[in-house]
Amino acid sequence: MSGPAGGGRRVVVTGAAGSIGRAITPVLAGRWDLRPTDVPGGDPDALDVTDGEACRAAFAGADAVVHLAAVPDPEAGWEQLLPANVVGGYQVAQAAADCGVRRLVLASSLQAVSAYPEGRQVRTTDPPRPANLYGATKAWAEALGAWVASTSSTSVVALRIGYFAQQPPGGPGATARDVAAWLSPRDCAELVRTAVEADVRGFIVANGTSANRYRFADLAETTATLGYRPADDAWSGR
Amino acid sequence: MSGPAGGGRRVVVTGAAGSIGRAITPVLAGRWDLRPTDVPGGDPDALDVTDGEACRAAFAGADAVVHLAAVPDPEAGWEQLLPANVVGGYQVAQAAADCGVRRLVLASSLQAVSAYPEGRQVRTTDPPRPANLYGATKAWAEALGAWVASTSSTSVVALRIGYFAQQPPGGPGATARDVAAWLSPRDCAELVRTAVEADVRGFIVANGTSANRYRFADLAETTATLGYRPADDAWSGR
Repeated sequence: MSGPAGGGRRVVVTGAAGSIGRAITPVLAGRWDLRPTDVPGGDPDALDVTDGEACRAAFAGADAVVHLAAVPDPEAGWEQLLPANVVGGYQVAQAAADCGVRRLVLASSLQAVSAYPEGRQVRTTDPPRPANLYGATKAWAEALGAWVASTSSTSVVALRIGYFAQQPPGGPGATARDVAAWLSPRDCAELVRTAVEADVRGFIVANGTSANRYRFADLAETTATLGYRPADDAWSGR
Repeated sequence: MSGPAGGGRRVVVTGAAGSIGRAITPVLAGRWDLRPTDVPGGDPDALDVTDGEACRAAFAGADAVVHLAAVPDPEAGWEQLLPANVVGGYQVAQAAADCGVRRLVLASSLQAVSAYPEGRQVRTTDPPRPANLYGATKAWAEALGAWVASTSSTSVVALRIGYFAQQPPGGPGATARDVAAWLSPRDCAELVRTAVEADVRGFIVANGTSANRYRFADLAETTATLGYRPADDAWSGR
């Protein structure tokens, strides 16, 4: 993607009021002309991502769209996932292409590859193998991204985001995989920054965790394609 | 999948009245206890695949479900694809798992990988890269299959079906890729037969074309996993 290194770039963020959105927008607002489509605390004017016309209105004139709006629950059922994740995934991708947005960044998830055996580090070239319906909706998002990138001027980066949390997961409920998939807030902001600004053509998938010493997902590809350099390690001090 | 080699196996076929269904059901009806959910010529009692309860009623007691019902048009738009391909894909997968069906065969398509560059033979390990929205709905079907296979007793075979036609594509409208992706009716019946009867655990993707001398998709994996041995060649006699 060509264009200015930071300032002047108009970036629309859907789901800006969600947990990832709240963590990254303060960091990136100083760098870009950031346009959140919703604000924390309940927003009556929030973008309805199932409405294609509303998406086109929100994306007009944008250099990039960062699409975070989705039901983020790996245990969510069909009725919850159909509107935002399935229909919204399509409408956002279609609208970004219709508006000639140069870069679309999609929040996929490592849940899209959660059915691979434990002990085998997943790569971005691995096809989706979700272990839950939520992960299947993220595979859908990736397919939509590939389609849009192959048929429009919009390049697409799908981020397979790991376990996003303020601190490395701990306590009895945390699995080893959760720790190995941890993505810290500052690494998440850096991941999204590089996904918007990197020189990428067509469609790529990129894994997104922190620099955890033992990691569920390979990051060498993300460094190579996006220039992403994470700083945190879930095992730091352990 | 264990069970009898052929006879006695109860196999439900959705979309039996479609072009693939009409070609394979006469061949396979003599081998299995075949239960089409629709018949050619317009069927008022045809299964509505967007109705989960109706799917469960249709699949109860089945050993296998062959899911062919979908809008098969690579140029179809969202309004056409949403009901049968997107919602129907979910409802069929969920119902097959709920009913304890041992084998679910899903009609994916080589359109799911149509955005790869010409000249590069696609493999079943290649992640979906559709060049149209129809192909994206087939990537969705594959993701649903992987999910169901990882969370239930149902094993799933997703067939990336090529260019199904009575004769090898010819004439000015036919592309080289169409020829290289040709799947003949008898090879299609053999492909579906092996997909139902092969000993497969979990989830696999299998390419499905005839034994075309130059082929868009690798078939070695399909022979290895399913025992599929196609007979026809689009370039025969050319």
